[in-house]
Amino acid sequence: MDVYLDYAANTPTDPAVLQAMFDFKSACFGNPSSTHRFGQKVKYEIEKARDTIARSLQCKSGEIIFTSGGTESNNLALIGASHVFPKGKNHLISAATEHPSVFNTAEYLRSAGFEITFVKPDRSGQITLARIAEHIKEQTAMVSIMYVNNETGIINPVQEIAEYCRERDILFHCDAVQAFGKIPLNLTRFKADLLSLSAHKIYGPEGSGALFMRKGTPLKAVQIGGAQEANLRAGTENSLGIIGFGKASELIDLKQAFEHAVKIQNHFENSLKKVLRNILIIGEDIERSPYISNIAFPGIDNAAMLLNLDLKGIAASTGSACSSGSITKSRVLQAMGLPDEIVNGAIRFSFGRQTTIKEIDYTIQKITEIAKRLLN
Amino acid sequence: MDVYLDYAANTPTDPAVLQAMFDFKSACFGNPSSTHRFGQKVKYEIEKARDTIARSLQCKSGEIIFTSGGTESNNLALIGASHVFPKGKNHLISAATEHPSVFNTAEYLRSAGFEITFVKPDRSGQITLARIAEHIKEQTAMVSIMYVNNETGIINPVQEIAEYCRERDILFHCDAVQAFGKIPLNLTRFKADLLSLSAHKIYGPEGSGALFMRKGTPLKAVQIGGAQEANLRAGTENSLGIIGFGKASELIDLKQAFEHAVKIQNHFENSLKKVLRNILIIGEDIERSPYISNIAFPGIDNAAMLLNLDLKGIAASTGSACSSGSITKSRVLQAMGLPDEIVNGAIRFSFGRQTTIKEIDYTIQKITEIAKRLLN
Repeated sequence: MDVYLDYAANTPTDPAVLQAMFDFKSACFGNPSSTHRFGQKVKYEIEKARDTIARSLQCKSGEIIFTSGGTESNNLALIGASHVFPKGKNHLISAATEHPSVFNTAEYLRSAGFEITFVKPDRSGQITLARIAEHIKEQTAMVSIMYVNNETGIINPVQEIAEYCRERDILFHCDAVQAFGKIPLNLTRFKADLLSLSAHKIYGPEGSGALFMRKGTPLKAVQIGGAQEANLRAGTENSLGIIGFGKASELIDLKQAFEHAVKIQNHFENSLKKVLRNILIIGEDIERSPYISNIAFPGIDNAAMLLNLDLKGIAASTGSACSSGSITKSRVLQAMGLPDEIVNGAIRFSFGRQTTIKEIDYTIQKITEIAKRLLN
Repeated sequence: MDVYLDYAANTPTDPAVLQAMFDFKSACFGNPSSTHRFGQKVKYEIEKARDTIARSLQCKSGEIIFTSGGTESNNLALIGASHVFPKGKNHLISAATEHPSVFNTAEYLRSAGFEITFVKPDRSGQITLARIAEHIKEQTAMVSIMYVNNETGIINPVQEIAEYCRERDILFHCDAVQAFGKIPLNLTRFKADLLSLSAHKIYGPEGSGALFMRKGTPLKAVQIGGAQEANLRAGTENSLGIIGFGKASELIDLKQAFEHAVKIQNHFENSLKKVLRNILIIGEDIERSPYISNIAFPGIDNAAMLLNLDLKGIAASTGSACSSGSITKSRVLQAMGLPDEIVNGAIRFSFGRQTTIKEIDYTIQKITEIAKRLLN
């Protein structure tokens, strides 16, 4: 039995998305920057996709900048904003638990002369407003905190943080890659200035993403060249990827997906606790995404567990897939102050549309067998 | 009759490329950074595509970095190299005739404190070694010159420039977006250190490109995050785009394509000269790509000509499509010192696999009709 429990790393492209992409490519081609009808037809399809995505976020179409994915969106948000920070402001606050595309980009900005503060999560694993407020100062230009942590599923109080920043004229960026299509995101209520999205986490294609940029937010292009995307992202648009992203966002059924994930996660965690009593569910006491369960198996090496699961056809991961093909100690779990035994034994299981109770039962059975073997 | 003569802006995706992409996406998914079999299968397909592209360039697979397209490749080459210029070296030489993704990136580097020299072409329109050599100094770290000019098709003596730079320990970057798949590119003979490629100019998909980086070339990632592409380009790989790029490069038949283009270009230019005697073929006296004919119609506004051609179903362009949907005066033609009457009347026609003599004859007929009308 093949069981894919790594939806937080990547989702299978929805057949309807693939069909829409195929139909688009079969019907039209041309450079959307071209003035002739070939190019303008492509341009029209791109703008339709932009409208769809904007509608699902309740923002304006002109506030969506297409990029090559979540990583580029995060780079554009941080580096692009840093180019136009107000005079005298050079301080960025982010968190020790951010995705590498925010964390490492902030480190790069530090090397470029900016002052960077990485806030640590509280004991529950959350990045609280209090922790951020402690570090706010006159020089603070920007705060960047993710919505849903990609390794633990822990939800940060980003709406509250956004309000706080807004009142102080501080830019707020939110990496919402693990939130979009999974939990409600309404940008008329959620006051983020910048928000990163990715298509391949919502059953769309890889290589396609977007940055929401609230109208009036100061930002400069990072990728330089032509005038595409309102001068904010040069390069011929990935029309195929954009059409797929649009279709994927059109197919989002938030309520149904959420209820399904809650059911799966509850079944998974409750069943697992019954058979393996000493496991630790990371972030169990705090608001969490139902799509991710990060489980620590004390005394078990997570690399060995993953390998054995893979041999049984079960795909899971240790934290972010974006770091490398190799397994290293999770920076996120370490930042939470968890002991080595927990960090080294933690595995991320993430759920999606196709996950079934039967798959979960099979997984529980295999985890139990492997855990017993590895503990002996 | 619909006639597409804008292949330099974009090519239709080859049906075999589209099929390969569709088959890949139907058969596998997963994040190539994941250690499990789902991810590893995708990784394997990506590496196969990398091998194919490397073979067609006669370089090593490890020398190919996948990017989101030609613009990103040019950004990575210039900005990524500038991050690690040797101490005391801060001078970059490029040309006034480069694509915006090189020209504007060099301007950005100027604003970041680097010294930039834009060499002008000689009277023929070529960027000669002599012009570059004039500006070489101790501080020169890098030279960036395109192979085939995207507006005029003029071929620069990049092999000679590469040798010259190599002897002086100066990095040489070449934007080969309009050369790859069109004229022979053998990287064992051509000594460029960095070379930019794009998939959508060779009947592959948009949003996919590569940077060749000769082994040992100092370079730092511009897009920051995970360790993908040997730490040189963070972000989940656009596997679909990469598979399409690989297939497109596999389908290249250089000899056949070249001979076809020569036939088309000769027929186009000779026929046109017969019916409109005062046209000017830009770069006629110098080595040129057979895929591009930039024709100036003195006394005719190119925007009006383009619009009228479009109404007759004929797609052409004024220079680079990458600048914007609007028509502005060509920086490239201005740099060549051409008078306003020529610059304002110049149109780029570019040819591809599907271009037929019949299409060319139809185009000549329509150009003649429109020119007569506009001149009256």
